[in-house]
Amino acid sequence: MPEAFDAGVYFIGRIRTPFKSRRECPKNTAESEAVGRVELDPRFAAGLLDLERFSHLWLLYWMHQARRDLVQQVPAHLGRPRGTFALRSPVRPNPIAMAAVELIGVTGTTLEVRKVDCLDGTPLIDVKPYFASTDSFPDAKRP
Amino acid sequence: MPEAFDAGVYFIGRIRTPFKSRRECPKNTAESEAVGRVELDPRFAAGLLDLERFSHLWLLYWMHQARRDLVQQVPAHLGRPRGTFALRSPVRPNPIAMAAVELIGVTGTTLEVRKVDCLDGTPLIDVKPYFASTDSFPDAKRP
Repeated sequence: MPEAFDAGVYFIGRIRTPFKSRRECPKNTAESEAVGRVELDPRFAAGLLDLERFSHLWLLYWMHQARRDLVQQVPAHLGRPRGTFALRSPVRPNPIAMAAVELIGVTGTTLEVRKVDCLDGTPLIDVKPYFASTDSFPDAKRP
Repeated sequence: MPEAFDAGVYFIGRIRTPFKSRRECPKNTAESEAVGRVELDPRFAAGLLDLERFSHLWLLYWMHQARRDLVQQVPAHLGRPRGTFALRSPVRPNPIAMAAVELIGVTGTTLEVRKVDCLDGTPLIDVKPYFASTDSFPDAKRP
């Protein structure tokens, strides 16, 4: 790994989910209908203006329990190594995950969302609106 | 803003694009057919195994020229303030962008991709495969 970090990240809130251990977490958001809460640090409250007008959001979060030094991993379903950048595994040089979730509602600085897959208490680093125009590729191919 | 960072990010490469100033950048990837190159730090080369088998990728990058302290902004097309978390603006507490791009090819540690929108030289922080199952919501609604 490089000797030093190049930039710093603020944790701007926490994601509350029903999953108290990594073993309980769904494999990914496609396999989850679980409802969770995003608890945003109140100092950023004004940043939510108009967010309730979107049906889907991206949550970016920091997978604080994941190691960062593996460039290849063996997914159980594959049985042979695959490169970290060809996987959505939490283990990667910068352990940032992105999850598209359905927005149920906004109350103060709490967002209620559906399709969460992460560990309860996961640090939040960003919320972005989902744009079908830039984000949706239904015909994207994978092996 | 908080007093200290909570975690550190490594820059793992650079994105090369035709855009030498922010003024030249397309508004977003939907308005770009530009071809760019992702130059990954060779220390992470083994992380690319199998990546060429995906048609689309997510690039996560660090918008190093963006300020981080605005919770509301006035987009030109809107003419009134909107919350930072309801915008895809580079200006946000953690200036991380995500862009879905088409993968043209992989040569060594260089990825050729289509639909880039960022500034030439933008620091790369992650590459992930695009999964239609978790990432594609063609019917997502926006105001």
